[in-house]
Parts: sequence; structure tokens; C-alpha cells
Amino acid sequence: MDQKIQEVNLSQVKVHDGFWSARQRLIADVVIPFQEKVLNDEVEGVEKSHAFANFRIAAGMEDGEFYGMVFQDSDVAKWLEGVAYSLIVKPDKALEKRADDIIAVIEKAQQQDGYLNTYFTIMEPEHRWQNLQECHELYCAGHMMEAAAAYYDATGKDRLLRVMERMADHIAARFGTDKQPGIPGHQEIEIGLMKLYHTTGREKYRNLAQYFIDERGKNPNFFKEEKEKRGWVHFGTDPEDTAYNQCFAPVREQKTAEGHSVRAVYMYTAMADLAHATGEKELLDACETLWDNITQKRMYLTGGIGSTGEGEAFTIDYDLPGDMAYAETCASIGLAFFAKKMLDIRPSDRYAEVLERALYNGILSGMQLDGKRFFYVNPLEVNPGISGKLHGYKHVLPQRPGWYACACCPPNLVRMVMSLGKYAWSQSEQAIYSHFYLGGRAEFDQAVLEVESRFPWEGKVSYTVDPKPGRGSFTLAVRISAYAKDTKILLNGMAPDNARVQEGYLHISREWQKGDTLEISFAMPVRRIYCNTKVRSNENCVALMRGPIVYCFEGVDNGADLQQLRLLRGEEITTEIGTEGVLAGMVVLKAKGKRMATEKTLYSENRPTGEPAELKAIPYFAWGNRGENQMRVWIQEA
Amino acid sequence: MDQKIQEVNLSQVKVHDGFWSARQRLIADVVIPFQEKVLNDEVEGVEKSHAFANFRIAAGMEDGEFYGMVFQDSDVAKWLEGVAYSLIVKPDKALEKRADDIIAVIEKAQQQDGYLNTYFTIMEPEHRWQNLQECHELYCAGHMMEAAAAYYDATGKDRLLRVMERMADHIAARFGTDKQPGIPGHQEIEIGLMKLYHTTGREKYRNLAQYFIDERGKNPNFFKEEKEKRGWVHFGTDPEDTAYNQCFAPVREQKTAEGHSVRAVYMYTAMADLAHATGEKELLDACETLWDNITQKRMYLTGGIGSTGEGEAFTIDYDLPGDMAYAETCASIGLAFFAKKMLDIRPSDRYAEVLERALYNGILSGMQLDGKRFFYVNPLEVNPGISGKLHGYKHVLPQRPGWYACACCPPNLVRMVMSLGKYAWSQSEQAIYSHFYLGGRAEFDQAVLEVESRFPWEGKVSYTVDPKPGRGSFTLAVRISAYAKDTKILLNGMAPDNARVQEGYLHISREWQKGDTLEISFAMPVRRIYCNTKVRSNENCVALMRGPIVYCFEGVDNGADLQQLRLLRGEEITTEIGTEGVLAGMVVLKAKGKRMATEKTLYSENRPTGEPAELKAIPYFAWGNRGENQMRVWIQEA
Repeated sequence: MDQKIQEVNLSQVKVHDGFWSARQRLIADVVIPFQEKVLNDEVEGVEKSHAFANFRIAAGMEDGEFYGMVFQDSDVAKWLEGVAYSLIVKPDKALEKRADDIIAVIEKAQQQDGYLNTYFTIMEPEHRWQNLQECHELYCAGHMMEAAAAYYDATGKDRLLRVMERMADHIAARFGTDKQPGIPGHQEIEIGLMKLYHTTGREKYRNLAQYFIDERGKNPNFFKEEKEKRGWVHFGTDPEDTAYNQCFAPVREQKTAEGHSVRAVYMYTAMADLAHATGEKELLDACETLWDNITQKRMYLTGGIGSTGEGEAFTIDYDLPGDMAYAETCASIGLAFFAKKMLDIRPSDRYAEVLERALYNGILSGMQLDGKRFFYVNPLEVNPGISGKLHGYKHVLPQRPGWYACACCPPNLVRMVMSLGKYAWSQSEQAIYSHFYLGGRAEFDQAVLEVESRFPWEGKVSYTVDPKPGRGSFTLAVRISAYAKDTKILLNGMAPDNARVQEGYLHISREWQKGDTLEISFAMPVRRIYCNTKVRSNENCVALMRGPIVYCFEGVDNGADLQQLRLLRGEEITTEIGTEGVLAGMVVLKAKGKRMATEKTLYSENRPTGEPAELKAIPYFAWGNRGENQMRVWIQEA
Repeated sequence: MDQKIQEVNLSQVKVHDGFWSARQRLIADVVIPFQEKVLNDEVEGVEKSHAFANFRIAAGMEDGEFYGMVFQDSDVAKWLEGVAYSLIVKPDKALEKRADDIIAVIEKAQQQDGYLNTYFTIMEPEHRWQNLQECHELYCAGHMMEAAAAYYDATGKDRLLRVMERMADHIAARFGTDKQPGIPGHQEIEIGLMKLYHTTGREKYRNLAQYFIDERGKNPNFFKEEKEKRGWVHFGTDPEDTAYNQCFAPVREQKTAEGHSVRAVYMYTAMADLAHATGEKELLDACETLWDNITQKRMYLTGGIGSTGEGEAFTIDYDLPGDMAYAETCASIGLAFFAKKMLDIRPSDRYAEVLERALYNGILSGMQLDGKRFFYVNPLEVNPGISGKLHGYKHVLPQRPGWYACACCPPNLVRMVMSLGKYAWSQSEQAIYSHFYLGGRAEFDQAVLEVESRFPWEGKVSYTVDPKPGRGSFTLAVRISAYAKDTKILLNGMAPDNARVQEGYLHISREWQKGDTLEISFAMPVRRIYCNTKVRSNENCVALMRGPIVYCFEGVDNGADLQQLRLLRGEEITTEIGTEGVLAGMVVLKAKGKRMATEKTLYSENRPTGEPAELKAIPYFAWGNRGENQMRVWIQEA
């Protein structure tokens, strides 16, 4: 790329999308207010948060004790970031006022030297910066930096941004080459610092992000030595588990995605962002290697990552048990972060397809359709009586619970969905990139684009261009993924003469005129997807996708014992628009299949026989909305 | 049955069997001496036992502290029981002398009131009989009663028998209706008391066994109340887990096999023994119901039971994950105990087939072929890198370890294999029953039988009868299982004219003459076995059996990635006699199959394709003897 690609500012994008707008409204109307009440301890029956109160106490405005996790501050940060995006999606003066008020409290809670963390300020001021492994000071700071940048972008108000610049300056004064060595236990500060850098332009913050990235793994014993030096523990987690902490090697030498999957992808996100900013090839190569390892060996079909509940972690290549998956919502979100940073380096379907896959499947499945319940863990198979109950399956809940004491996933989902415009678009001096179809209006330096989209249920989208004076000469690059078949492209009703396709992006470079309209239409036949035979879990199975949507089979539609179902090879799979209940408006799939009979004995010399059966599959993200029942993505093919 | 069937005394049977004699010698020459050294703390590098020392200390012969598990005494009991059987298989005066010596120590360790338990005697005499849930006093007593009966049967020496009668009297004086209520936390005393009853004829012991059986589950809160009353804990295990403890209902009302699988089958064994002794139909019906539940819904193909490592327990119907199996060696041994007691009530292939299945597969797999290493857990699939390492699979070791701190399985295997004669035969006034083919000599009231057998590798066995004077009129009932095909039966070279088959047993009733020979020969074609489609784990899979032997596929023969193998439907499976190494002399299987190719991508629209591959299967019991590698019993069929 000769021209560096940049993220858009969310306020450039206005979403009017048949699929996403309703979800954004749901989050604005239901999830964010609910979360605010939780943070304010106004919801009965959920785990007490105390997160706002912690800030008031640290600010000296209220008496009391700290309560909650050592990283409780991050819940406020993530809420504020979500609020910032929400104010763009749906302006709300009263909400903005309340956000301003809590920002004022946060400012007061900041210490003279710039330090900000309510746990240590209230509880253990003498223990600051001694337990980077377990105590999440840098993690909380990173999230608050993200919130600060987002709030500034959304409102133009820089109060929180200034607070977090002071905190960043405080951190920079303490950690670095020739200062105190340090790396975060849970990566996130790297992302926060890069956002601070992008927002303020101050290279100091980029350099500090780079320091934390460069420092990791240089001394694999860092956390062990840190523990020995301080002589106390918080949770008691193992400082020597260098895979868990991604400390097993310097980041540029890491070839496989290891350890806690959220920490890992947060780190890769910052690495890609930094590589983009500095142009460093070695770091970019490491990102590519890790990307390939994840997406070609350690990723569930849904874009879920993390195959074990122990350490919420990656395991080994091709170990992808659907019924024991961790596949944390946050990890899929982190994978989408990583994908977007790679896309900004090089727009390619190989990244965008994963971003879209995670978004429409492993991320969206994290939220009940009514916005009231959430999954941490997004399995590809559940079996009532086993899932959530038996050893090895306890983390796999067959239904979404209401809220979590460690409430990371719901607000992460909020900020992802509310800032979707940042993921759908990128821009450069020369080009505008559309990574996936998001209806609405997007304003760039060159032009305003109006997008109409019937995605993901129909392959029909149009871009109407209104160029700015003297800026009409640019490239519009629209991704058309490999799942699109029989694609028709019309520019003002005619086949464009200068279209070229590069890595799954249709590039049209021209002098755009007001009202120019690019129409793209394509078929999305149902695809039978097969899993690499190195994977033990999906032997002889097939999964169904249509466009970016992964489908699944639920007991409520197909009866119990889904393992008895067989999808027949060669049989057509038909589509229907759901008309009732939660499935209304969604494309559901029907197929002729078989159900294998239940034999009388446990073991038999008789091969099981089957009877014809009608099979129905629904979008994976919609599973678990109709009561507890069996669910499977992968199904036997016969 | 008009005539009650009885167990044989082991000294009636002399084993000379092509398959089993070598294993008995191995145990006599390697395992028992090794175990003796362990109990004497003479083996470096294994967990310290201290079990003999505990008895010497309790006997006042030595100073010191108790060391080991609260049930450490049972290791001595099980060793003594194994020694007793071994003295029959292979007389050894020096060994007998050492056993006599330790029995003298045990006698000295017995308290004035008959109480015998070194832990409480040394450590907490004031806490005797207060923690039946956790402290295994009754369990240890049961095992020592079994040892006492066995040692008396083998040697005619009654010193240990008298010790255990005094202990039984002590227990009977304390527990019972109108006395202190009590049930054992880990069932075993019931079996021990029944053996004491069978050996001494004293109904008091049978009544006490009945008391413990009747009492269980009457008050599901018994252990909870016991804990509250005493106010201390030993391990801290949950007294309210009534499924784990089989206390969820009175035993006659239990319809499903629940909880800790060894405790469960030990209890069912005693229930069946008691039902046989008393003729009680309700208790027998309960046994039948539990038998059906286990064998038709909760048993691995190998005769393994217990689907989860958590609580070493049964889970739910049809939950039989091969790669997460617990399938403890002891549990399969307990299942064989249960089967034998049911066989004594009613000789039927339905019990004998399971006894034999457990014996040749899930029990025998517990021991390395060299007798030096042992499995607790007998999975039906292992995957190096996952088994023994990842969450949910940690209990599934891919190779047999040397010895265990909780050393229950190795001595249990010892006593099972060394007392095989008791399982092969039963007797009544009118009939002699041969439950499976065991070469050698067996003496009954009616006759002496010489058996020649090429089982299990060949379906060829003969019984030569030498009747005792005036006792020649009896029925010889020989089981011929359903897996035998093209069976030929010759009595003195001619087809017998009065043979009848009942529940899988060939009955020949006649006036037997000296030298009469019954020859049975049959084919054992390789059988493709299919699993009930209610089981999720074996979808589209097939397993191979030949006679009672379950086969498995190992990486060393078939290459890595066994999940890529396909056995082809309809293809012939050929047999070969192994010639090399550990497989020498065993029938191994060869089949034309396929190996599915490894695709380049993780997910693809291309259905995987396969190349022809030669597949080799070996007896399951022999797996894990050629280094760590992948192993599977169930394999995809195409």
C-alpha cells in the first residue's frame, strides 16, 4: 500500500441497517441502561458491582470500602466506551450528563501523580505497581484509555482524555527501558495506548505501547521474579505459566497462539496496530504467523477461539471439541479487533471473512435476542444433562445466564456492536474500503456514501456516492467474499468497465459523480462445510453456512438426540424466512435427512438404520432463545 | 433352579491355560513380590506405603507414627488375599511363612474388644466409628474378611479368620437395628461379611451384611447427620452427595446405577449374594434392574463403567465418552463380581458374557503385559497432547504409570486373575457349570474334569470327565456364547443325543463314564459392533470384536491421526497371529480401509477424500505396550 489506511472515526458513520440497527437500538435501550443500573447497584438479584461507588470512595466523595474484583474499574471504563458509541448511534443528553458526572468522579479519583485505580487507592496504596501479573492496574488503565478516546471522539469532550493522558504519563515515567521493567498480566494497555496515540498524535504513547510489546517474553521469568520480590499474592495464580501469559518467547518469535485467548488476541491486536504505525516487517510477519495459526488450526467455525475452560485458553492445533469449547464472547471480539487491524494493513478477504464470521456468529451468540442474558462461553454443541453439569463440561452452559460477577463479555459485546461502523469501513487518501455491508450513511474526506443493504439474509447492496467538491477522484473498494456466487455488479445500471478484484475486494477507481450508484447482487447458496480431518471432533460431519451465517440444529425444531440425525449427501437444502417468534425474519434452512433408530441393546452387530426426517437449521447466533434443549452445529452426513 | 448353585472353592481348580497361566505366573513372580516390597517400603521411587509398619506400630512391636491413607490397611488385606490365591496357583512356603508372620502382627494389632484398624488405633482412638462416611473402617474390615476367608480356604489356617470373626462380632455388637445406626461410606464390608458367612456358616454375619444393605438409603441424610454430630471431617468430602454414596433411595428402590462406580458394584455384588442366600425376590429384582441399567445404558464396550473422573462415577444413560472415560480397573472387577453372583443365581449368557467381556478387556487392560505398570483408568481413546494434559482429560493417562499412592487397582487385578477358577466354574448338587473356558483341572463332588482350551484365540475346547464312584449322574452345563458360530459339539466323537441349550448354556445330562470327552469347536468370525444411536460419542463408528476380545487401533500400527481412518463397509477383515514382540501369539486383525487426506484449510466446501489404507487392530488389553501413541476402539465406518 502506498497510502496508509486509517480507521474511520465512528461519528463519520450513521447506521441504518435492516439487521444491525435493531440490535443497536436494543443495546441502547436495554443493555446500556441495565448495565448502568448494575454498576450503580440498583438491580436486585444480580451480583453486586459497586463499581461506581468505588470511584466515589476513591475520590473522597463517599465513605466506604472497595468492593469487587481488583479489575472492577474496567467495568466502568467499558460502560463509558459503550456509552460513547451509543451517543453517536442514538443521542441522549440525559445519558451524556450522567456519563459526564461519572467522568468528573473519575477525575477526582485520580491521584496527584496521575495514578488511577480505585482498588489500590482505597485498599493497598503501598502495593501499587508491585503485582502486574495479577492486579490488572495496566489493564484497567488500558480500558479507561479506550473509553477516553471514544468519549472524546463521540462528544468532543476531553476531560477523561486528559485524565488518561496524565495516567499514561505516570505509567511512562515509571516503566520502560532504564526504568522499572514491566509488562501487564492481562494485555489491554497496549490497545489503550495505541488509541491514545491515534487520538492525540503523541508518539510517547505509541512508544510506551511498543515498550510493553517488546518487553513481553524477553524475560520469561519476569512474573516469577516480580512475585519473589514483592512477597505477596492476590489471586495466587501461577506466575510461571508462561504460555498462559504469552511470556514464553519474545512476541516476534511466537509462532502459535498460546494461553488465555482474550489476552492473546488483545496483544496481537496491538501488535498489528503498532506494525501498521511503524511499518515494521518483523512484527507484521509475527502477526501473520499468529493469524494463520489461529484461523487455520485453532478457530471454531463460528469464529470462536479457546478450546479449553482451563485458563480460558488455546490448546493445541486441531483440538476443537464443540461440546467443551470455551470460545469466549470476548475472545471472538478480540479476534475481530485483530482482524480489523490486519485489514487496515492490507484489505483482504482472508481477514475480513474472519471478522464477519466472528461478528455474525461467535460474538452475536453471546447475547440473548432480547438483550437480557449473555453467554461467556459459546459452544458448538450442548447436551442438557451433560453441559453445565458434568466434569469437563461445567463451563458450557446450555442457556444464557443473566449477569456475571466478572462482567467482561456483555459490555465488550456492547462496545463491539455499537461501534460497528469502525469495523465496516476504512479509509486512505486514495480509497474508501467497505469490509462488510452495513446499511446507512458514511462520510469520508472524498465523499458521502449512502448504503442500502439486505445483508445478511439477501445478497443485495448498493452504494450511492455524493463526492465532495474537487475530491471525486478516488477508489471505492468493496469486499465481495468468496461465498457470493453469480455476482452481478452494476455501476449506474451498467457493467463497470474498470473494475478489478484484489484479495476479494472489488476496486472501482474513477471520477465519481453525484448520484453514482454501485449495485452489487449475488446469490448465497447454502454451503456444506467440512472440517479438516486433523480435527477429531467433527468426524464425518458437515456444517451449514449461508453467506457469513453459521447454522445449527436445535432440539426444539428437530427432536431430541440430534446425534441420530443425518444430513443426506446431495440432497438440496432449501431456505425459508422464519415467520414466528424469535426466528421471524431470519433465513432458516430445511433439508431432507434421516433419523437413525434407537436400537434395543447398547451394542449390536446390526448397523443402525434410519427413517426419513425433515431437518431444520437456524442461525447459530439465535440458538438458546427457545428454552433449554440440545444444539449442534456439526451434524453427521450420510 | 431347584438346586442352589454354589461357588467353588479355589483349591478345587488347577489352571493350565494357554492364555491365563502365563498371566498367573507373571503375577506370582512379578506383581505380588513387587507389591510386598512396596508394602514394606523397600522400593525406591514409588510412593511410600508404610502399610506393614502401621500394623507393627498398632501391635506395639515398633515405635512410630501412622502413615498413608486412612484406608491403608486395605492394601495389606488385598495383598494377603492375592497371596492366598497365589499359594494355590503356585505353592511357595517362604511366601506363606511371611504371610503367616504378618497375620500374627495383625492379630497383635487387634484391640481387646475385637476392633482392628491401624489408623484409629494409632492416631485417633477416641474417634473410632464416628466417621463412617469418610474413614473406611468398615471398608478395611471387609477387605480383611475377604483375605481371611481366602487364606483359610487356601491354607486351612484360621488365625486371620478368627481375628476377623472377632472384628465382625465387634461390629455386630455396635451396629444394627436398636443399636447404633450405620452404613459404610465405601461399600465392601457387605461382601466381606457374606464371605465370612459362606466360610463359617454363621448366619450372624449374613444378617449383619443384610443390615448394612437394608439400612442404606433409608435415611438419605445419614452421613450429613453423622457429620453434624461428630463435628470433624477427614477428607472433607460432601456428605450430602447421596448419589455418590448410593444413599439416594433404599437399595430395593434404586433403578439406575449412580455415583462412585466401584462402591456401587461392590454393593450390587453383595445384594446379589444376599438375594441368592435368602431367595428374596424383591432384592433380586433390584439387582436385575441395576444390571440392565448398567449393561444396556452405562457400560463401555470393554466392560468399563464410570463415565466421569469426577467422583469416579456413573453419569447418565448413554453418556459414554471414550476419551474421557473413567472405566476404573476396579470398577470392571466389581462388575465381574456382580456378574458372577448373578450367574450363581441363574446361569445365563447375559451375565457370563459381561463377566468375560470385562475380564478380557477392561480388567486385563489395567496391567502392562510385563506386569510392571498399571492403569486405574481404561479409556477407549487416547490422544497424546490431550489425554492426561487438558481439562476434562487429565485422568486419562496415555501410558500406564508404575504404582499409585491409592493402590487399589493393581492388587484388585491380582486377586481377580489369581482366583479365576472361582469365576470359571459353579456347582450344584445336580450340575457343574462352566461359565467360560479355562484350561486345567477342576474337581467337584461329582467328578474331576480336565479341560483343554485354545481360547480366546481359537474356538476349541474339550472337557474330559472322570466321575467319582456313584456320582456319575449329573449335568455338565457349558456356556457357548452367542459369538460362537458354526459350533460343533462332539461327545466321545459323536453328536450328543440329549443336549439342550438354555440361556446360552449347553446342558448335557447323563451318567458320565471315565474318559468321556465333550469337544466343542466353533468359529469366531470378526464381528463389527455398532453402538446404540443414543450414545453421542460413537456416531457412525464401528468397533471390532472377535469372541470376547475387543480390538483397538494404535498409532504405532496405523500412523497418527486415527480419526482419519475409515473401515470400509463390507470389506473382509482378516486375522493373523502376531509374531513379534508383545503381540506374539495374539490374534491381530487386518482390514482394507481408507485414510482421509489432510486438507490445506481448516474449513472447506470440499468433502474430504481418502486413499486406500491397510488397517491393523490389536486386542484392546494389549494397548499401550509399545510407547505412547494414539489409540481408539471405535473407528469411523465408510
